[in-house]
Amino acid sequence: MNKALSIALLLLSCYGVAMSQDTPSRYVRLAELEIEPAQMDAFVAATREVGQASVRSEDGCIALYAVVEKDNPARVRVFEIYRDATAYEAHVQTAHFRTFRTTTDSMVRTRKLIDANPVSLATKPGVVP
Amino acid sequence: MNKALSIALLLLSCYGVAMSQDTPSRYVRLAELEIEPAQMDAFVAATREVGQASVRSEDGCIALYAVVEKDNPARVRVFEIYRDATAYEAHVQTAHFRTFRTTTDSMVRTRKLIDANPVSLATKPGVVP
Repeated sequence: MNKALSIALLLLSCYGVAMSQDTPSRYVRLAELEIEPAQMDAFVAATREVGQASVRSEDGCIALYAVVEKDNPARVRVFEIYRDATAYEAHVQTAHFRTFRTTTDSMVRTRKLIDANPVSLATKPGVVP
Repeated sequence: MNKALSIALLLLSCYGVAMSQDTPSRYVRLAELEIEPAQMDAFVAATREVGQASVRSEDGCIALYAVVEKDNPARVRVFEIYRDATAYEAHVQTAHFRTFRTTTDSMVRTRKLIDANPVSLATKPGVVP
């Protein structure tokens, strides 16, 4: 192997390390939902259920976070992390996700999806992602 | 210990397990930032740096996620998880956070903070949170 090629491979490997630290290949889904206020408790219960089922049973579902805005308790913000796009495609085919959608569709007034690319997914070392 | 007390303690301990699964005591911070387009690369670099420094050196900083909207590459959305409010207060006093703010303040056009309460923070088992 000549010197130029060695340097090129070294640079590529360093780049690979930097990339994996920030896991930019992860597939992230964001959503903003407005929930029927009278249905909020039921929506919260269904969200916790689908979240736990997803991270437990799906290899590629890394995190499913949902929070409610303090200033507007009918507004829920969702932040989901999947290993890659294929893992997300598998997620929406699962029985627990389909049940969640069927159960909650009538509880959701509006739903805005935000497609996003990871910039940094820093998590405590030893923790995925 | 009488039977009623035993049952009460058992119920309390089950409730504790259920609570910890959904970690509602975690302190979550959300933000939406608009970045000067010419400064985006520098902002991304600074964000990765403060993210890695925070999760490595702060006991209570669990995750610091930043993503950029695909439809509006100047808009960054931030989702941070701390052990509790005290851990967040400690975070903003650290040298790496202060450096980040000083370095990036001129790069940020607008900054919207959204206070939120966790509904579900489901993460793959064995993983914090």
